[in-house]
Amino acid sequence: MSPSLVANGGVSSPAPVSGRVSSVYSEVQSSRIDHELPLPSVLKKPFKLVDGPASSAAGNPEEIAKLFPNVFGQPSSQLVECDSSAELPNQKLKIGVVLSGGQAPGGHNVISGIFDYLQDRAKGSTMYGFRGGPAGIMKCKYVELTPEYVYPYRNQGGFDMICSGRDKIETPEQFKQAQETAVKLDLDGLVVIGGDDSNTNACLLAENFKGLNLKTRVIGCPKTIDGDLKCKEVPTSFGFDTACKIYSEMIGNVMIDARSTGKYYHFVRLMGRAASHITLECALQTHPNITIIGEEVAAKKQTLKNVTDYIVNIILKRADFGYNYGVILIPEGLIDFIPEVQELIAELNEILAHDVVDEDGLWKKKLTSQSLQLFDLLPEAIQEQLMLERDPHGNVQVAKIETEKMLIQMVEADLAKRKQEGSYHGQFQGKSHFFGYEGRCGLPTNFDANYCYALGYAAGALLHGGKTGLISSVNNLAAPVEEWTVGGTALTSLMDVERRHGKFKPVIKKAMVELEAAPFKKFASLRNEWAIKNRYISPGPIQFFGPASNSLSHTLILELGLEV
Amino acid sequence: MSPSLVANGGVSSPAPVSGRVSSVYSEVQSSRIDHELPLPSVLKKPFKLVDGPASSAAGNPEEIAKLFPNVFGQPSSQLVECDSSAELPNQKLKIGVVLSGGQAPGGHNVISGIFDYLQDRAKGSTMYGFRGGPAGIMKCKYVELTPEYVYPYRNQGGFDMICSGRDKIETPEQFKQAQETAVKLDLDGLVVIGGDDSNTNACLLAENFKGLNLKTRVIGCPKTIDGDLKCKEVPTSFGFDTACKIYSEMIGNVMIDARSTGKYYHFVRLMGRAASHITLECALQTHPNITIIGEEVAAKKQTLKNVTDYIVNIILKRADFGYNYGVILIPEGLIDFIPEVQELIAELNEILAHDVVDEDGLWKKKLTSQSLQLFDLLPEAIQEQLMLERDPHGNVQVAKIETEKMLIQMVEADLAKRKQEGSYHGQFQGKSHFFGYEGRCGLPTNFDANYCYALGYAAGALLHGGKTGLISSVNNLAAPVEEWTVGGTALTSLMDVERRHGKFKPVIKKAMVELEAAPFKKFASLRNEWAIKNRYISPGPIQFFGPASNSLSHTLILELGLEV
Repeated sequence: MSPSLVANGGVSSPAPVSGRVSSVYSEVQSSRIDHELPLPSVLKKPFKLVDGPASSAAGNPEEIAKLFPNVFGQPSSQLVECDSSAELPNQKLKIGVVLSGGQAPGGHNVISGIFDYLQDRAKGSTMYGFRGGPAGIMKCKYVELTPEYVYPYRNQGGFDMICSGRDKIETPEQFKQAQETAVKLDLDGLVVIGGDDSNTNACLLAENFKGLNLKTRVIGCPKTIDGDLKCKEVPTSFGFDTACKIYSEMIGNVMIDARSTGKYYHFVRLMGRAASHITLECALQTHPNITIIGEEVAAKKQTLKNVTDYIVNIILKRADFGYNYGVILIPEGLIDFIPEVQELIAELNEILAHDVVDEDGLWKKKLTSQSLQLFDLLPEAIQEQLMLERDPHGNVQVAKIETEKMLIQMVEADLAKRKQEGSYHGQFQGKSHFFGYEGRCGLPTNFDANYCYALGYAAGALLHGGKTGLISSVNNLAAPVEEWTVGGTALTSLMDVERRHGKFKPVIKKAMVELEAAPFKKFASLRNEWAIKNRYISPGPIQFFGPASNSLSHTLILELGLEV
Repeated sequence: MSPSLVANGGVSSPAPVSGRVSSVYSEVQSSRIDHELPLPSVLKKPFKLVDGPASSAAGNPEEIAKLFPNVFGQPSSQLVECDSSAELPNQKLKIGVVLSGGQAPGGHNVISGIFDYLQDRAKGSTMYGFRGGPAGIMKCKYVELTPEYVYPYRNQGGFDMICSGRDKIETPEQFKQAQETAVKLDLDGLVVIGGDDSNTNACLLAENFKGLNLKTRVIGCPKTIDGDLKCKEVPTSFGFDTACKIYSEMIGNVMIDARSTGKYYHFVRLMGRAASHITLECALQTHPNITIIGEEVAAKKQTLKNVTDYIVNIILKRADFGYNYGVILIPEGLIDFIPEVQELIAELNEILAHDVVDEDGLWKKKLTSQSLQLFDLLPEAIQEQLMLERDPHGNVQVAKIETEKMLIQMVEADLAKRKQEGSYHGQFQGKSHFFGYEGRCGLPTNFDANYCYALGYAAGALLHGGKTGLISSVNNLAAPVEEWTVGGTALTSLMDVERRHGKFKPVIKKAMVELEAAPFKKFASLRNEWAIKNRYISPGPIQFFGPASNSLSHTLILELGLEV
């Protein structure tokens, strides 16, 4: 019998744990299923929704207003304690949920939170899980979520309860399919668990349904390990905490290895294509010798040579101190941040599409001199990769470039030259790592488990309260869970527009690493010390009990204005 | 004030924790320093050493006897409780310790165990740590180990307290250097913490010192994450438990990701060149779809094509069930287990040394037809790697081949062909991983922490008791730590000889995966089910408290004749 379900008043007689379909559990997985999830105290008592003032948009409010005539300007809504006469009346609801985009630890707890909300506060409700992401909505492919079905996924990593997908609901035809599903299932509400794009999509659905007077309301939840969906009202996306702690465990281990062995430079590429939050957070947790932050590279308009020089210079200094080892963190998206690389790739795409690439290299004359210089700087293997591996549209596949290996080769070449010149006497051996898939489906940390459960519970409350076009928002996260505040924020208030093909498109702007914000400034103030002196920290494996088991990410702590 | 030091009666007033040189600690690292280490109860009371019968050798005892005239045939020795009148007299000792070879979690606890033994039972003793491995002995490069120096490394990963090295003491000159150091430091004993080679070396040192009537005794300790140094008396090498749990955490995460995403085959190469114990243990912990065990490949004389076919066939079957994803474990040393690959490489080395490699490929005619067939089967990138990347002796660098990527390319090519033929309709996308450096320096599990501490404490006792040429042996590991038995085993009893350059060389034979032993048989009985049905287990991060925090490796449990 599950203490948590009982504590939440959900299921009077939970079914025995059957395990995920054709799966078995480790001891730690099992223990996590029965781990009781704390709720913010406002969610444990009678509560009501209290609206704030009308909202605006993150940019171009007049355009956003035009794009969202039915939901623009909605106030944020806060859950506040009330006496039982004022609380939301019990009402049977039909609620759908969908996971959208890449995995992030905690997704199952968002679903559990919605589910438990309905069990607790809207008894007799029905919940559907759309399978395989937004395509499941369009194709009306779903599973009815029962206590037996949901329970084995509590506090478990992965998205495999209903799986995810990367489809978007974009065309009029696709919106029509979504409407049909909403009507067919008689949905009162839909929760979209996803990143910036998916939440934009959620808001478009909310607008669309409301415009058609459908009763189906739509609430978003902030998901992405990349950490680039956040704002004042949504302090962090779920999954970031767990993923960064998993990567930092590995980085910390590699650091101790580097110091013990004394002869390797470990180049660690970390997932996170658009923004470098993961790399920054891991740096704050582990104190590597060198960390490249994409946003800084872009802001300073650095070239690939600038980046290599920066790395080489630190390696030279370290060699003077007798250190021929180190750890270097690189964001997955580094190349995308370097303007000259973008330019080279654009030129290559053009040449490869229209010209013959001769063996003697005469084709190279078609490159601008800047691009030619860059091309010649690149290691041969990368040159070949740029020339040979192309996507179905004939374009160079930037994503396939193993940046960490490229940098090792470039640094190696540079150091060999300096050795010949007599200005370097150290030894250099690079080892490459990519930490990505290891972090997306780990068992959620206590923070992510609790945060997700509250996000889901809040989403249930917002739908119950008749809200649409909001994103579930849980705040005051540095306090104990009991004191967390819970509500919803107008999705349109997070939006700006981008002009594409002559039309305005609404977007929730990705939250990039801000060079003036506390996390980067903290890092920048320490990195020179970390470069030479070895201040390595090994965070160790994520703990569910005891020390550090309830820690927050450094990024979140610093963004909340607190000291790490 | 450290509870553990006080509990062991070691240091009456420990210095404040200063941290490792220029390092800082995470919360989990800090908590581990103060974590109290339990001792087997025999080590908490007065004890004496009781010898067993004379020993022999693992093979060719008459040759081993000739190679080790002074230490061959020594009995094993067991620590047994006694009344205080019979215990070893307090005696000031001078003891050196050295770490040899690759890192393994727990090395610092072996040192702590020796150190605490001396503090507890031989008050006034001095302990030296040789720096940078056996070279530190030869160069007499050492640090005196004090409570302040040792304490911050308790339960910490890495070998950075005194660092390690891969040198061997082999030549008469090198033995002379070691003798000089032993005499100069007036050493009563030396503890060599290392793998099979290092323990062979320890025994040669013991023999050498005893033959010269030096008082310096030598005791070995079984270290290697590879798990290939073990026998009846030495049930496991330390570090294996932690490393496998770290890799299994990552594999489990990748499995949940594979199932959630539904579109990737993850090829995971695992450290362990000589033996496949790590791969087997990780398979037992996580239940991958496909696991290649090098020893089986060798025993069945499989070709690379056999291995690829095996993988492809399972992928085809899975596609029939609608599964276009999976997880495949590959031992680092796979290629070394395939006879035809060894043959090809030998032929290539020969050709590259003596012939011109022409662009038109006429040189290929010099390959035997079997080798030519294999060469043509290899992906182009691997062919190039074989031709271009050579070590300083001009030999092909097998170790640099990324086997997981090679297999992905071969499987990809095979599936593309089948797709064209119409016999495969699935989708295949491979993702490659190498888990190695992440596991060698993690925070030791409770098992490794306790096991190492007992190994070190035992080594101290053996030296105190006048023993030499033994390896520290701790047994009854499935029982609570209190009930572990402690002693030493004659290193010569682990030895056989190999004939090299016409001479017999003593070797401790690497313990390979035995196809008739319980761990492999358990795996073999389940792998067909794992192949098709998804029985993934995600062990989650290593826990220091609560569930699974005191679990043993599956390999050890099964080898002890117990059920997992």
